[in-house]
Amino acid sequence: MRDFSNDHSALAINSATVKSLDLKGLIDACARAGIGAIAPWRDQVQAVGIPQAGRMIRDAGLKVTSLVRAGLFTAADAAGRKAAIDDNRRAIEEAVGIGAANLLLIAGGLPPGSKDIAGARQQVRDGLAALLPHARAARMPLALEPLHPMTAADRACVTTLGNANDLCEELGDGIGVAIDVYHVWWDPSLAREIARAGRRILGFHVCDWLVPTTDLLTDRGMMGDGIIDIKSIRRMVEDAGYDDPVDVEIFSANNWWKRDPDEVLRICVERFRSVV
Amino acid sequence: MRDFSNDHSALAINSATVKSLDLKGLIDACARAGIGAIAPWRDQVQAVGIPQAGRMIRDAGLKVTSLVRAGLFTAADAAGRKAAIDDNRRAIEEAVGIGAANLLLIAGGLPPGSKDIAGARQQVRDGLAALLPHARAARMPLALEPLHPMTAADRACVTTLGNANDLCEELGDGIGVAIDVYHVWWDPSLAREIARAGRRILGFHVCDWLVPTTDLLTDRGMMGDGIIDIKSIRRMVEDAGYDDPVDVEIFSANNWWKRDPDEVLRICVERFRSVV
Repeated sequence: MRDFSNDHSALAINSATVKSLDLKGLIDACARAGIGAIAPWRDQVQAVGIPQAGRMIRDAGLKVTSLVRAGLFTAADAAGRKAAIDDNRRAIEEAVGIGAANLLLIAGGLPPGSKDIAGARQQVRDGLAALLPHARAARMPLALEPLHPMTAADRACVTTLGNANDLCEELGDGIGVAIDVYHVWWDPSLAREIARAGRRILGFHVCDWLVPTTDLLTDRGMMGDGIIDIKSIRRMVEDAGYDDPVDVEIFSANNWWKRDPDEVLRICVERFRSVV
Repeated sequence: MRDFSNDHSALAINSATVKSLDLKGLIDACARAGIGAIAPWRDQVQAVGIPQAGRMIRDAGLKVTSLVRAGLFTAADAAGRKAAIDDNRRAIEEAVGIGAANLLLIAGGLPPGSKDIAGARQQVRDGLAALLPHARAARMPLALEPLHPMTAADRACVTTLGNANDLCEELGDGIGVAIDVYHVWWDPSLAREIARAGRRILGFHVCDWLVPTTDLLTDRGMMGDGIIDIKSIRRMVEDAGYDDPVDVEIFSANNWWKRDPDEVLRICVERFRSVV
């Protein structure tokens, strides 16, 4: 396992962790904190335009782990599903434009009015199959991130790493998985499914599960403040062959989003070295 | 599949659904609503004493699906784990005393200060193994209920039906599973694991998943108000051989717990006939 105790060169910051910053602010804050990689959200790079965003990122010498996020394939009708594919094609172009290593995807939840989660999963499978030729042509890997089951209804019907692995095996080249400890730590099949994912692991994300957790979306913790054994999961992921950056993604409406971004990044670096 | 459209004789009420009532109040309210089975919580029967609780329930002609709830095997030290076993032995006696068909168990979460979920699961396995001889001697089946992964840290490290099935297969006779749609509806392995559980299914619980869900514990919905395809899951459970009562268990701090219990039970009956 890599030794991060005196080295945070593998740390990447997902821009949602310091949500108040625009792309320029994020780039400057990462420079001040000695952070060499980012995972920006689409709205942030769209706001300055893709060519300009790409230039800013390259000029700063930053790696981009993922462009975050596309996917969201489920919809109530065929027109909605086509619109999702079209939007995902634009996301592939954006990811290429900013030099991202991959495009992060989440599945999407149940379409409005639907109770058919198996049908939603079929829509995700079909959406990925339709998108993959474009991703392959652009040489842009798709990183499918299973989300916590508590998001299954409104965000991501692909709820387990096993589910994501099944889809990847069916769909073939050009797609892999992103593993976020927050979404998978509870899974009794985790060790087996990480080993099965192997070289298909395209991203590894960290934060922490707080006890109690007061919100299903925006109450994630800083690494070390919760109950996830992050090092154990990182060991599994690295044993499977992963040696790319580790993204910190913390949605925290009542704590970290309220703090000074420089303080947040400083603590991310400290915790990355001590807890991750 | 059983036809409930004009028949709620299979409806059982978990006392947490009408939390304001004591045992006498629950029995009387069920009589007024024509409900023939209950699943009382332990504190409620302990409050009147087990022999008296048993008499009241028998005199009213009510079935008891489960005594709710015991388990909670995880603890920071051996003394704590022994105390849990002792308490579970008392729960078995209580379940026998009130004529319950089974004793409902939840696993327990991570011990205080622990990040070791595999270790917690081992504690649950060892606790069940220690308890089973007493359960068998008392002819009281143990119904292990996997809970939603969002409860893994503080309530139940057994997070999937597959996990519960594995434990049952390892431990042998005297233990089965209780399946609550709320806890399992998101699981891509659900159909397979329900079929695998087969005759081991000792209980089936219904409520609904609301969108949005605003609390991890006390924001469950009335059947039909959320996005769970309850009938499909009931079909799987009945195809596996289950033909016992269906428990309604709704934790709802901001809605159903604030309403008049007679109104709540009336709506439970309506929804049981139309949605379950």
